[in-house]
Amino acid sequence: MPFDADSLKYNENGLIPAIAQDAENGDVLMMAWMNAEAVRKTLETGRVTYWSRSRQSFWVKGESSGHVQELVEFTFDCDCDCILVKVRQTGPACHTNRRSCFYRAVRGAEVVELMQPEV
Amino acid sequence: MPFDADSLKYNENGLIPAIAQDAENGDVLMMAWMNAEAVRKTLETGRVTYWSRSRQSFWVKGESSGHVQELVEFTFDCDCDCILVKVRQTGPACHTNRRSCFYRAVRGAEVVELMQPEV
Repeated sequence: MPFDADSLKYNENGLIPAIAQDAENGDVLMMAWMNAEAVRKTLETGRVTYWSRSRQSFWVKGESSGHVQELVEFTFDCDCDCILVKVRQTGPACHTNRRSCFYRAVRGAEVVELMQPEV
Repeated sequence: MPFDADSLKYNENGLIPAIAQDAENGDVLMMAWMNAEAVRKTLETGRVTYWSRSRQSFWVKGESSGHVQELVEFTFDCDCDCILVKVRQTGPACHTNRRSCFYRAVRGAEVVELMQPEV
């Protein structure tokens, strides 16, 4: 069946959550948002492209930082309302310079930091 | 620092996306939503609990199907607007009886099915 980006389910702002996972070790790196055009750009260019809600513009991940995400596999879920991209991540995925945005855990009611910024 | 569920950022409906990842093999299993009370229930009970948007009620994952998610690690992202739970998943996570909800990929503009329902 041919894929149609418009067949995914977008929220009232035309956006769908997209999870990025490290294709090599399976770490979940970040979650951001795409619109239908960002989905098409991601598939056409092989560079993972989000929609920046704060800047209201396309966000080719790593365009300014160099921390690009090369698309390895594009998947979507049973309800067609969430995307999971497996990526080859150059450098840290997080703007705090950590490998993953999910660097804090809750253990015994305390917040614990799991990783440090890369240098 | 003590964790406060109210310190996470919820959307206009009081919800935050929560990604569930298999703690053993790193597979991303599903994405659903929590409100602050679901976050507290998840941490207090060790049973991953979402907020069902369609039913407008708490959804203790697996309560009816038996396909429970035992909490292994609760993490959240840099912007405090997304949760990642690592879980011990009993049975399939997806309501289609597949291990993961992300069972379809886009390859060469075609939709490809990556896994079959478990029997």
